[in-house]
Amino acid sequence: MEKIGVAIIGMGTVGTGVAKILLDHGDRTARHAGKTLWLSHAVVRDLKKDRGFEVPEGVLTDDIEKVIAADDVQVVVQLIGGIEPARTVMLRLLEAGKDVVTANKALLAEHGPELFEKARQLGRSIAFEASVAGGIPIITNISQCLSANQIKSLNGILNGTSNYIITRMDLEGTAYDQAVKEAQALGFAEADPAFDVDGTDAAQKLAILAHLAFGARVHWSDVPKRGIDQLDDLDLKYAKQLGYRIKLIGLSRLTTEGLQAVVGPMLVKAGTPLAEVRANYNAVSVDGDAVGPVFYHGQGAGQMPTASAVVADLIDTAVGRTAITFKTLELWSDESNRIEMAQPGDLTGRFYLRFNVDDVPNVMAQIAGVLGQHNISIASVYQHDNDIQNGVVPVVFVTKETTEADANSAIYEIEKLDCVQSGSERLRILE
Amino acid sequence: MEKIGVAIIGMGTVGTGVAKILLDHGDRTARHAGKTLWLSHAVVRDLKKDRGFEVPEGVLTDDIEKVIAADDVQVVVQLIGGIEPARTVMLRLLEAGKDVVTANKALLAEHGPELFEKARQLGRSIAFEASVAGGIPIITNISQCLSANQIKSLNGILNGTSNYIITRMDLEGTAYDQAVKEAQALGFAEADPAFDVDGTDAAQKLAILAHLAFGARVHWSDVPKRGIDQLDDLDLKYAKQLGYRIKLIGLSRLTTEGLQAVVGPMLVKAGTPLAEVRANYNAVSVDGDAVGPVFYHGQGAGQMPTASAVVADLIDTAVGRTAITFKTLELWSDESNRIEMAQPGDLTGRFYLRFNVDDVPNVMAQIAGVLGQHNISIASVYQHDNDIQNGVVPVVFVTKETTEADANSAIYEIEKLDCVQSGSERLRILE
Repeated sequence: MEKIGVAIIGMGTVGTGVAKILLDHGDRTARHAGKTLWLSHAVVRDLKKDRGFEVPEGVLTDDIEKVIAADDVQVVVQLIGGIEPARTVMLRLLEAGKDVVTANKALLAEHGPELFEKARQLGRSIAFEASVAGGIPIITNISQCLSANQIKSLNGILNGTSNYIITRMDLEGTAYDQAVKEAQALGFAEADPAFDVDGTDAAQKLAILAHLAFGARVHWSDVPKRGIDQLDDLDLKYAKQLGYRIKLIGLSRLTTEGLQAVVGPMLVKAGTPLAEVRANYNAVSVDGDAVGPVFYHGQGAGQMPTASAVVADLIDTAVGRTAITFKTLELWSDESNRIEMAQPGDLTGRFYLRFNVDDVPNVMAQIAGVLGQHNISIASVYQHDNDIQNGVVPVVFVTKETTEADANSAIYEIEKLDCVQSGSERLRILE
Repeated sequence: MEKIGVAIIGMGTVGTGVAKILLDHGDRTARHAGKTLWLSHAVVRDLKKDRGFEVPEGVLTDDIEKVIAADDVQVVVQLIGGIEPARTVMLRLLEAGKDVVTANKALLAEHGPELFEKARQLGRSIAFEASVAGGIPIITNISQCLSANQIKSLNGILNGTSNYIITRMDLEGTAYDQAVKEAQALGFAEADPAFDVDGTDAAQKLAILAHLAFGARVHWSDVPKRGIDQLDDLDLKYAKQLGYRIKLIGLSRLTTEGLQAVVGPMLVKAGTPLAEVRANYNAVSVDGDAVGPVFYHGQGAGQMPTASAVVADLIDTAVGRTAITFKTLELWSDESNRIEMAQPGDLTGRFYLRFNVDDVPNVMAQIAGVLGQHNISIASVYQHDNDIQNGVVPVVFVTKETTEADANSAIYEIEKLDCVQSGSERLRILE
């Protein structure tokens, strides 16, 4: 049987998972690829570290140059995280004639245009299924399976760390700091989870998906983002009482003004599929003009789910499907910039607004008055005597449909009122 | 731009949807295919029928021979239903050098081996995403996206007609006959829905999925099947009281004894994703050894969802991905028969058993005694005085794990008891 040489750069959690599948299930990958995926090099930093499983003699190396120089390596799984040296290594691999498979979403979100242009010039391919939503094959589904559709919206839970933390807080009443520690102990959060909990990771993934789904050339830093790190338990409680759950959502939607994209904690109607996504799972809901709504749910991270996506990319690259898809997708090429970003302020929707107000007469009338001046109708109000603390009580308004700009102006005015104290909250309701 | 000639045979609901996408969204398909998908022929029975949209001059024909003879037609969307003449037409198209895209699951389930062998011999391909689960791209997901996995189980709601009917019965209390009529009025059921409601359609789809997922050469008629046409409202009610919903499930599972596959109404835990699939939707839950559980949900039928799948296949065929996948999958080839079917009696699981018993002393002890003799433990029992009619009362047992064979023997013995009247029910609980 024909043989195709594979190298892995970076034998952390995911790299080890990929090596396990290649070494333990060679018959399986050979059957799907029509050729043997032969692991020739695995680049590690520390040759002496115990990896808990047997790697054949001569495969492990700490010299990346050996992979770049190896004529018998056709595909490289590039699993170095962060931007540099990951970027330089990927460019050198492409120049050396290798096809690349990667899970590094930060690198693609930051340097996608440069890397994809280089690959096209050199007639090479970059596959990146594992970079978004782990085991959910959302990249292939958008770029291939749903290609007959104009996608109208794509909403997802794209950060497993945040979803684990928020699920613990919501269902078990665990405090934020404690939930972060649990996530770290279970391997669902890194030692420094800043990029997970502040929305950066989800924004990078949403930017990649929005590019694929809408042809929009979105830089992740242009996606307004907020994480779960500033959420108040109180709002989880009120949301539940109103029939919602709070989830960290990446929202993208095609409007007549262009593409809307935003990442943040949002209220999702309890009982709907996205609201019920638990623990470290991810989910993506796509609405296409022909297919209608399609929903995907699976593990968003972890060794073997991510390795599953990497090896599927390896097989696709080995059989030639990646080369075809990569060429027709024209990723981040000048041709692909078909949709402009809309003004974030134009994004319509309903909002959950919480203000901490003095427990004195006429407060409700003043706030409702400001909302009315900004043409914002109120769908429901929630206030409870039990919640009074030191003469201050939280009052929650659920609005009818308005724009982000109107909501922001109204909140600005309301926060200036004498009777309104600090610490208000504003969350979008996902429709 | 390069042009690829496409013909559609059969301009019913789905064919019309495919034509709409090709004619109205040629820019979209061209972008994804890297070439123009040019609709050259659409074969209809009645040239004079009003189709509600404009087909360009010269495209409509009632002569299938024109398509077979046309040198400029490279791909044919073959949408003739049933076995003949669909089979003969497909063989002739392949012999004439055309690649084929089809939604005819009955034909593939019956004659897959012959058709796929013929296509391989002639170097042609058959794409069939639309044949199972409509808009959910489950065929591509199993055969490509999850190819790094040994799939351990695949369970799905594969018949939208049945799911619509059972949802109406369950949530609205609609009677079976009335729900069938509503499904017909909405276009979710055909004039004669026999193959939908008796489980045939789901068994054919499960056989195709089991072949792809497990490499098992399952003939659909070897899949034990039951439909929803004999369900009693009473069991929907009791299941709900026990915290379950009844759904028509296609279950397939790899065991040490081989592949288990069965279609029938089963109890699914309320709140789990499959239990909450409503109306005409389909869903598939796949468990892979690397990726873990992945869940797909979307419209299982209807004009545009099915057309979405057909056009994705057209694009895949036009760009060359189908040719690659078709070759490596070795569908229904002698090489692909790697997994044997297990004995249905060995399938383990828990059961919902309902017996109609005389309201006299010692009945419970007799039934429980027979269950005990067959090593079947009881997890819970349900009986309510309100349900007594003419001295007969339904009593429901939920068993602990047992085998199908033991459950069948026990039921046989129990039904022989003098105190047990006719009309008992036995439903599997999906784990």
